[in-house]
Amino acid sequence: MNKKKKVILQITLCMFMFINVAMAQKNNYLTIKEQGSFAVGGTVATEPGSFDVNNALDSQGQTFHGDHLYAFYQVPLKARNMPLVFLHGAGQSKKTWESTSDGREGFQNIFLRRKFSVYLLDQPRRGEAGRSMVETTFKPNADEQFWFTQFRLGIYPDYFPNVQFPKDEASLEQFYRQMTPNTGPFDTKVITEAISLLFDKIGDGILVTHSQGGGPGWLTAIKNDKVKAVVAYEPYSGFVFPEGELPLPIKSNGLFGELKGVEIPLSDFNKLTKIPIVIYYGDNIADKPTEVWNKDHWRSGLEMARLWAATINRHGGDATVIHLPEIGIKGNTHFPFSDLNNIEVADELSKWLKQKGLDK
Amino acid sequence: MNKKKKVILQITLCMFMFINVAMAQKNNYLTIKEQGSFAVGGTVATEPGSFDVNNALDSQGQTFHGDHLYAFYQVPLKARNMPLVFLHGAGQSKKTWESTSDGREGFQNIFLRRKFSVYLLDQPRRGEAGRSMVETTFKPNADEQFWFTQFRLGIYPDYFPNVQFPKDEASLEQFYRQMTPNTGPFDTKVITEAISLLFDKIGDGILVTHSQGGGPGWLTAIKNDKVKAVVAYEPYSGFVFPEGELPLPIKSNGLFGELKGVEIPLSDFNKLTKIPIVIYYGDNIADKPTEVWNKDHWRSGLEMARLWAATINRHGGDATVIHLPEIGIKGNTHFPFSDLNNIEVADELSKWLKQKGLDK
Repeated sequence: MNKKKKVILQITLCMFMFINVAMAQKNNYLTIKEQGSFAVGGTVATEPGSFDVNNALDSQGQTFHGDHLYAFYQVPLKARNMPLVFLHGAGQSKKTWESTSDGREGFQNIFLRRKFSVYLLDQPRRGEAGRSMVETTFKPNADEQFWFTQFRLGIYPDYFPNVQFPKDEASLEQFYRQMTPNTGPFDTKVITEAISLLFDKIGDGILVTHSQGGGPGWLTAIKNDKVKAVVAYEPYSGFVFPEGELPLPIKSNGLFGELKGVEIPLSDFNKLTKIPIVIYYGDNIADKPTEVWNKDHWRSGLEMARLWAATINRHGGDATVIHLPEIGIKGNTHFPFSDLNNIEVADELSKWLKQKGLDK
Repeated sequence: MNKKKKVILQITLCMFMFINVAMAQKNNYLTIKEQGSFAVGGTVATEPGSFDVNNALDSQGQTFHGDHLYAFYQVPLKARNMPLVFLHGAGQSKKTWESTSDGREGFQNIFLRRKFSVYLLDQPRRGEAGRSMVETTFKPNADEQFWFTQFRLGIYPDYFPNVQFPKDEASLEQFYRQMTPNTGPFDTKVITEAISLLFDKIGDGILVTHSQGGGPGWLTAIKNDKVKAVVAYEPYSGFVFPEGELPLPIKSNGLFGELKGVEIPLSDFNKLTKIPIVIYYGDNIADKPTEVWNKDHWRSGLEMARLWAATINRHGGDATVIHLPEIGIKGNTHFPFSDLNNIEVADELSKWLKQKGLDK
């Protein structure tokens, strides 16, 4: 082959590759350097006696491992330094962060595309981490119209007029079916210990919590300084205050009544003042007491979050509460990260992570 | 810029891209066109009465969705036509196919790299699909030395000398912790119906089952002709035979006693003769009756599988039973796909899929 032909061949090959790469970018493939799953933490119980292999259905001398968490992780090509570690809320699992009810991408994919490594957790006694140290009975209690309302899709059977949730039946069914039960009692200490051990394993990272995950989230950040930031979507219970600074309970017409904070030693509280924290709430939350119980439930949560952030900041910390409608992001339910406008919600988080230098 | 310079620039850019692509191949990134999760199937129960939003903690008039399966799927770039749909066994979840106990890649990643789309299922009443229509109590029964032995890691506390399982404590702990309980009774019909609906949704595919998943596997293939092949790793119970052709129960010193087949109408059985089927068993299974109960338990399974395949083939079907040690693949446990030699085990499957034209 002469030189000229070689050059032409090379150019042709290269053009072909250009096209391939351009198509890949257009089609927006995920490029995953590594993915996998594992258990972390938990305890082990051993029955008295010694194991007899010829009587192996007898529990004597046998062990039971439980109360670990389960993590599924993905590391994208050219990942940023710190992963996002996602903890679900009550009755939910890592599904919270996966596909939305109408099949769009959730925060798992959205932040992979933005080059964050992601860890999706099932907390101890939930989902793939179901092996619980505590006996539990699970009853199929009909409760979905309650959750529809509690999670602010609307006031059942009506959707809120501006709600960012798809109003077709199939999506609502998917939403109901993403719940998965506790296989043991909710235990903040067990959950916190497991997540802290996860951070020991993976190193510095950003903890993203939803709802009931908020409480274990604060406590994990206190326990482990590898938690370099906390992002909390709609936390409600479990706000921690220094001894002597507990605010009065906030009265609410929500179905769980008044909302109380939790007292902890100042030395523990101070650890939360060393890291940036952001808290997001969605729409259709009352701004003053109302008889409409779902709007009032979350009013008490939002008020408590504001008292809490003020306490953090008074102690020299950096906590921000963002009520999304106040910055023009309207209609969000209790699940802003999977709502119809979740790209916009993710953009807000990206902006905050950048401001705080957490996206290097 | 003159022509010559343009050409040089173009070549330089292209060389750079060549290097990038070569590095990507060397580092073996996964390129994922699409990934997500959803629920399929299940039922819904409605409490009598009408829902009163002001009494929303009362179940009256409320619904409960349960008994669906959960699927997590990934579609690689340039995927082959048919996906692999993976169903776990007893006490397991989709974790079965993810990272191995010692953190190597399981069949999820191995077959993604081989350009198969993968669907990892949690069957109804398990893991992320935990919302069960039937009340259940879950007790933390110490049973792990039983499973160690039953799953043929060895005869507790001894590993089989040739076992393809990592012998460090951390790996064994991960293995124990990947179990997750039933949140309702195991129900073949419920599972089969949900998986059949999955195939209705995704179209033609190859069903890969493990252990207890074998029974629902055969029944799903009977129910839905979109199941184009079945691959079963170490099935035990649930082998289906035409009426009048049921073999005698196989006596066994296994802890579950004798093994029986299940009678079904010939017209149903015949559907299994229309698709290729392969069944794999690992090592340390007795070739004649023995007092060693784990080796004898799986001897009865392997014998039943051979009777079953012979019946399928007598009726014009295409079923193969591969006892891995007989083809030189030694030391496998009940989990060949996650054993130390799982690449070799995967190679066997790839070979079979190619033979049967299932890897187009």
